[in-house]
Amino acid sequence: MKKSILISLAAFALSAPSFAQEEKAKEHPSPNAIVGAAQPAEWVQIPAEDLLMMTLAPDSDGAVREVVIQLMPAPFSQGWVSNIRTLARAKWYDGITINRVQDNYVVQWGDVHGEDPEKAKPLPEGLEVMDEGDYVFPFSALLKGQIYGVTASSRTSTLKLLLDGNQLPSPDKTMEEIAATMRTLRGDGYANDTYVIDGWPVALNGNKYGDPILSPTHCYGMVGVGRSYSPDTGSGAELYTVIGHAPRHLDRNIALVGRIIVGMEHLSSMKRGDGELGFYTESQAQLRTPIQSIRVLSDLAPADRPSFQYLSTESETFAKYAEARANRRDPFFIKPAGGADICNIPVPVRQVAND
Amino acid sequence: MKKSILISLAAFALSAPSFAQEEKAKEHPSPNAIVGAAQPAEWVQIPAEDLLMMTLAPDSDGAVREVVIQLMPAPFSQGWVSNIRTLARAKWYDGITINRVQDNYVVQWGDVHGEDPEKAKPLPEGLEVMDEGDYVFPFSALLKGQIYGVTASSRTSTLKLLLDGNQLPSPDKTMEEIAATMRTLRGDGYANDTYVIDGWPVALNGNKYGDPILSPTHCYGMVGVGRSYSPDTGSGAELYTVIGHAPRHLDRNIALVGRIIVGMEHLSSMKRGDGELGFYTESQAQLRTPIQSIRVLSDLAPADRPSFQYLSTESETFAKYAEARANRRDPFFIKPAGGADICNIPVPVRQVAND
Repeated sequence: MKKSILISLAAFALSAPSFAQEEKAKEHPSPNAIVGAAQPAEWVQIPAEDLLMMTLAPDSDGAVREVVIQLMPAPFSQGWVSNIRTLARAKWYDGITINRVQDNYVVQWGDVHGEDPEKAKPLPEGLEVMDEGDYVFPFSALLKGQIYGVTASSRTSTLKLLLDGNQLPSPDKTMEEIAATMRTLRGDGYANDTYVIDGWPVALNGNKYGDPILSPTHCYGMVGVGRSYSPDTGSGAELYTVIGHAPRHLDRNIALVGRIIVGMEHLSSMKRGDGELGFYTESQAQLRTPIQSIRVLSDLAPADRPSFQYLSTESETFAKYAEARANRRDPFFIKPAGGADICNIPVPVRQVAND
Repeated sequence: MKKSILISLAAFALSAPSFAQEEKAKEHPSPNAIVGAAQPAEWVQIPAEDLLMMTLAPDSDGAVREVVIQLMPAPFSQGWVSNIRTLARAKWYDGITINRVQDNYVVQWGDVHGEDPEKAKPLPEGLEVMDEGDYVFPFSALLKGQIYGVTASSRTSTLKLLLDGNQLPSPDKTMEEIAATMRTLRGDGYANDTYVIDGWPVALNGNKYGDPILSPTHCYGMVGVGRSYSPDTGSGAELYTVIGHAPRHLDRNIALVGRIIVGMEHLSSMKRGDGELGFYTESQAQLRTPIQSIRVLSDLAPADRPSFQYLSTESETFAKYAEARANRRDPFFIKPAGGADICNIPVPVRQVAND
């Protein structure tokens, strides 16, 4: 098992930093250095029930390829998450293949004959059929009935807003003052606001003065559920992960169920498919990497379960880390950006020794 | 030579669309279908002087790997672009290697001994030393001296704004009305506005009422210049391309000089490096893919030059394409996003027959 993913935000410099740069690094630690200094209590154990071990066939050098997927907790996408556990426990995934590798988009795995009724692998009993309404959920559901106020900042005890621009401008500001702060007002072109809630990237859409809608965001490494045309919502038998720039137009159109926390590089570096949408063509059939198995970690013997933690997104260290990602002041940088998008502030995850 | 890159925004559906979906597709064509219907006059020829052919060593199956880089035109980064032509014409790049492949970040190539004065490959004469000020340029430079007004939309004849939110709110709006339009006010967390200008993604920062600063944006496939710590700005001998979510915090911190228009998949699917920052370690030295040559296409015989065009970003079809990318209504989608970020509206490029 490789170390868990802490996506490095590295400098391009090849040379060693000078004394002055080292002094600057002490004053302005990098995001990763900030995470490295987190207190033990700021790390949250990920339940083994929320972790999947996906074992791919060994690579051409015979090396083991293991991918760990963290499933989303409630209130996100729980119907599909439950189906995925059912499919894993039925060993339905064992022997399916990676069928699609589309550059700057997704890697997708499933039953290569899934669309052919005569050849499709039968699905196990007990899968739920989910509604399109379950792609999203109302903000009030998250707040467990608390009344949502006018400004997002009134909920900072519940939500750790990513950026410094988490408040609506006060009505007594001039237009010039508002324009000067516009860049901090909201996350991106896809949502009214973006947050990291309980360890997951989430977008808020809709009327800020009513009960807005939350949806997880399609960031690099997020795992979603392939589906057919509406009203189909997918069962969880066909899954994909994002290997390029965040395709946020898929938010609210498809179910997200988790993220890759180990082994992303095995998927992202696969040879791209030559077929339409990056599917492997029949003449590339040998490129369809078999998935040997997918197991829920809680089903393994305790000694065989790798153990993972994420940095609490409600912690002080996460707030410092997010601020440092939005305003890089470590030695390589000359102009802090003054902001960041939700997908450029990945939640730190680490592997720890088993209990 | 493979077909040029038109990044496909594909559905996840495996099944064929129904009649109703086909009818919907006619009413709401996909972004790619819109581009496919562009008029010949809307395509702009890319000068051969702005195109580089980078030939990698063949892959493990002996297949040819060609990568085409489009260099940025004036007023962007011209000092580095000029250096890159000088380096290519001196055949300096021939025999250098891909040294760094960092997941969700960059692929970087250069002289693997570049930091060792005793082993470094000597650079050719005549390279310019650029200033950090050249990472950006004032908006007025682009407008060739025209006065910049209060709203970006006053320049729509020069700038084709990507999204519908290209105007500052008028001062007589109430705060509620401003809040309701906030999601269309600006592009993202990194800039006051984002545009596609003369075929390139550009961010605007600074005081909207003065002379703001423009800088190209680090989107997937963009090519930049590796550098050491400030005040070094890099020569162009060390280059990288983005293979993950747009690292926009690098904007204004490093020179962007172009983008990959063919063969991106050869770079993005390379095995990731195990060293710090994704550099290949000494024990992975065999993974350092050699670059056989980099040539300026205008130096090749006309019959040997592939020919490329981009869709004019000032064309009507581009405006329709950008709108469709921001509001997907083709059959797979159920909720148009209502916006897009600059890196999710890649400029269409196509290969055409030589004259």
